[in-house]
Amino acid sequence: MISLTTDFGVADGYVGIVKGVILSIAPAVRLVDLSHQVPPQDVRRAAFLLDAAAPFFPPDTVHLAVVDPGVGTARRAVVLRTPQGLFVGPDNGLFTCVLAEVLEWEMVELANPAYRLPQLGATFHGRDLFAPAAAHLASGVPLAAFGPPVSEPCRFSLPCLQVEADRVLGEVLYADHFGNLITSVGRLHWQGDDLALSPAFRPAGETRRIAVDALRLQCAGHVIQRVCRTYGEVGIGDLLALVGSMGFLEIAVRQGSAEQTLGVRPGERVEIEL
Amino acid sequence: MISLTTDFGVADGYVGIVKGVILSIAPAVRLVDLSHQVPPQDVRRAAFLLDAAAPFFPPDTVHLAVVDPGVGTARRAVVLRTPQGLFVGPDNGLFTCVLAEVLEWEMVELANPAYRLPQLGATFHGRDLFAPAAAHLASGVPLAAFGPPVSEPCRFSLPCLQVEADRVLGEVLYADHFGNLITSVGRLHWQGDDLALSPAFRPAGETRRIAVDALRLQCAGHVIQRVCRTYGEVGIGDLLALVGSMGFLEIAVRQGSAEQTLGVRPGERVEIEL
Amino acid sequence: MISLTTDFGVADGYVGIVKGVILSIAPAVRLVDLSHQVPPQDVRRAAFLLDAAAPFFPPDTVHLAVVDPGVGTARRAVVLRTPQGLFVGPDNGLFTCVLAEVLEWEMVELANPAYRLPQLGATFHGRDLFAPAAAHLASGVPLAAFGPPVSEPCRFSLPCLQVEADRVLGEVLYADHFGNLITSVGRLHWQGDDLALSPAFRPAGETRRIAVDALRLQCAGHVIQRVCRTYGEVGIGDLLALVGSMGFLEIAVRQGSAEQTLGVRPGERVEIEL
Repeated sequence: MISLTTDFGVADGYVGIVKGVILSIAPAVRLVDLSHQVPPQDVRRAAFLLDAAAPFFPPDTVHLAVVDPGVGTARRAVVLRTPQGLFVGPDNGLFTCVLAEVLEWEMVELANPAYRLPQLGATFHGRDLFAPAAAHLASGVPLAAFGPPVSEPCRFSLPCLQVEADRVLGEVLYADHFGNLITSVGRLHWQGDDLALSPAFRPAGETRRIAVDALRLQCAGHVIQRVCRTYGEVGIGDLLALVGSMGFLEIAVRQGSAEQTLGVRPGERVEIEL
Repeated sequence: MISLTTDFGVADGYVGIVKGVILSIAPAVRLVDLSHQVPPQDVRRAAFLLDAAAPFFPPDTVHLAVVDPGVGTARRAVVLRTPQGLFVGPDNGLFTCVLAEVLEWEMVELANPAYRLPQLGATFHGRDLFAPAAAHLASGVPLAAFGPPVSEPCRFSLPCLQVEADRVLGEVLYADHFGNLITSVGRLHWQGDDLALSPAFRPAGETRRIAVDALRLQCAGHVIQRVCRTYGEVGIGDLLALVGSMGFLEIAVRQGSAEQTLGVRPGERVEIEL
Repeated sequence: MISLTTDFGVADGYVGIVKGVILSIAPAVRLVDLSHQVPPQDVRRAAFLLDAAAPFFPPDTVHLAVVDPGVGTARRAVVLRTPQGLFVGPDNGLFTCVLAEVLEWEMVELANPAYRLPQLGATFHGRDLFAPAAAHLASGVPLAAFGPPVSEPCRFSLPCLQVEADRVLGEVLYADHFGNLITSVGRLHWQGDDLALSPAFRPAGETRRIAVDALRLQCAGHVIQRVCRTYGEVGIGDLLALVGSMGFLEIAVRQGSAEQTLGVRPGERVEIEL
């Protein structure tokens, strides 16, 4: 199986062409679109998405990811193998979040011309370079055949998350399709009536318990006093905080858009007094 | 085969994750997207869509539908079996239109924890509950294994359609991608030069003949005098009425948008004097 | 394999219904979306897209294309066979670009009612006529079984491209998802430090060499002095020209939108002084 994540949009046929190339090489492979609406060249957004989605796919899935502002420049093209799946894409930080959650991984550079299209252009490596590599990888070509090992992959700085004695500081990561604001405060899961916070992207981090009824969350001048379990606990149009499907704290408006209500952008500070 | 209908959009990877879960359980199943652009939480729109699409799929297709404003609350999760296919989703009215068109059906609640993901969260039942159920159903698990029967499914009131001696009253259901206004006046089909109207969602309804050249359709102050067979019968930019692909009367503008021209919204009254 | 290209959008379920019809007839066929976001009724845009994508698919792929402003009128429905694949759709110019690039082709009209749905409506031939034809074609039904040969397919006039002694005249074809302006100046490929221009859609055209550092490209009052190999050769936000992934000259803004910067529309003149 190959999943696809790009910023190509779906209007121009670029994704279809990538799939044509894959299926020409590996006719029996299953293809699943993860997203082609990553905001143009938003490597961080794609990195979060890959990390959130990979655990729900079989561990031998090849995740093809092409968000590639540096296409045609000297940035490396790579394959990454982790216990959560295989990843193919540019080495520009795309795999930062996946790498932060695993203890073992192996990366090689896509250097072997046998696993490219014959004509490698400078503007569409999704088609000429990454699609053939993903197809060959899904067909069983071993990692080492693609090229030499990469020991220091490119990584961006992880989103802010400070867990202190009496407060937690985080930031808004992005707004989803519903206008829910996904924050860096995670991963959270319920333990009875409390929340357990095990900082994401820090495999060795300590778990912290949070009493959900005795907190004060502030973001962009708005205050929320507790964390709900479901949208239904507040009135339609009311602001609430809850644990989102990926285990991150979300700020939402029931049957509305928190993004519009708060008017905030990625990077906005979120502070929780405990 | 499993079809998918949601209001998740395609940017955030939620649909891809649902597919990852399905294919982890049922690797050989075929997946077909019906729509992921149902307006957020618009259960009625999804209900029309399921009813319109199901007849064009093999009758053993599993239609997975997740438009779920009440996720995490007490609303039931169900599987529905009809002669037109199997349906999986929340019991919030989503299956109103499908139920209105069949004489026999069977519904059970998704109560058996064996057919869920181990961790059932409160915000993403599409992933944790409905996707596994659809995958197991498509793999041959019998209906009764999922849970106890449901005898009174949730239904919303059907859209307005009054057929009187000298007029038909209906309403605008929604505007499609082309700006065509789909109305509740249906199902219609041509019989020679007349239209036969067999009210939708009323299996026992009487058929009524309509002479298409002697009518007067009014909507939002605009008047249309006849029903065309094709867009080509009027000039570019002109308003027309015709029988849409689902058998409902549509108000359209040739190579334009009736939604913009008339400026109306779902629920707008449509009156036809015969 | 069947690829799908339409202007249906993805909200209304029309594409899902087309796939349901195909898979009811040909359950084992692979489906790949090329685009469903062709601007409504923009036959030229779909024609460019089909031509650009087909070479990257296996040559026995059936490309189903439905952009059909004349649905229900007397325009023919056809199947086209070329060395680059099979094509099914309305005979309204959709195959102009594909036809212009091949020396051999065969076209027949979709006249045989055995390869349609039983009820052929007047508004959704994608579902009733083209989907069944594509499914039967992919299942091995021979071309001649569909209907009589067509010797003079409908074609639109090809986009402007004049190659003169001291200049090249072209036009903007369209803006893609990134805001890159794709022009008719192609097909280009690098030969050392020069570009070789082999006019598209003219199989017998002569190749012309262009020195990329000694030119002056003008479009909408903006001037670009050379052709880059990659986006990285200019600063972020700067205007550049490069050879796009389909071999056509593109005007782009690095990490920005040339469409917005130049404010131009399809048809805008592009002039290159050599």
